[in-house]
Amino acid sequence: MPEFFQSLETAEAGHTASLNSALEAIKYNDAGLVPAIAQDQDSGEVLMLAWMNRTAIVETLRTGRVTYYSRSRSELWRKGDTSGHTQHLKTMRIDCDGDALLLTVNQQGPACHTNRANCFYLEVEPDSQFIQVTS
Amino acid sequence: MPEFFQSLETAEAGHTASLNSALEAIKYNDAGLVPAIAQDQDSGEVLMLAWMNRTAIVETLRTGRVTYYSRSRSELWRKGDTSGHTQHLKTMRIDCDGDALLLTVNQQGPACHTNRANCFYLEVEPDSQFIQVTS
Repeated sequence: MPEFFQSLETAEAGHTASLNSALEAIKYNDAGLVPAIAQDQDSGEVLMLAWMNRTAIVETLRTGRVTYYSRSRSELWRKGDTSGHTQHLKTMRIDCDGDALLLTVNQQGPACHTNRANCFYLEVEPDSQFIQVTS
Repeated sequence: MPEFFQSLETAEAGHTASLNSALEAIKYNDAGLVPAIAQDQDSGEVLMLAWMNRTAIVETLRTGRVTYYSRSRSELWRKGDTSGHTQHLKTMRIDCDGDALLLTVNQQGPACHTNRANCFYLEVEPDSQFIQVTS
């Protein structure tokens, strides 16, 4: 675990640290990316999981418009530029060991490219041999 | 996007497909892993993000005890075996393009190894230059 995040494990609520130090310490993968979960700020619904590089994180924080990195197109992807289904950032959270992000967002329209409210519409129940489309 | 998941994009709610076909089609990364988000079934709180390989998915569904793959220890990690802080699976969901999982769980005790309720206790607000410990 990066030393920066280890040092915050025992910090008390209210303690602050430098954002730049955090951005340096985040454990990006070999492609320079970290997974980011988007959660609806009102409903608590988990909308999607996508990926960010450091530039996407900085752009998202600077503009308040959630910006991912598209692995298929190999470019920054400002959510909603094509679909109109933008995400506005309320808060960004980093996890304990600095390898995942949680974004609380205000989602305009459906989050999923299938026009469903969220991307997690395929469900499996324990012990079942089937998956089911839920929406 | 895997053909299997593409074929379900336009399926109606209630449509079912084979779990085995889904497990075959999931886009595991080069290490054979897929990110899994754990969300508390009661509060809707996002607890953590960890990783699963195919065996971990099957074990989780078979036993109802959430089992991840530990990248640091390179072995299956049945959540709570050491800490007592188990996760019991309610439902597993797969996202639209088959490269992320969402687990709805019943969490016993804190989810984070720091004994915080969840792993996302470091918060950044838009335009801030600081991160803040929130719990």
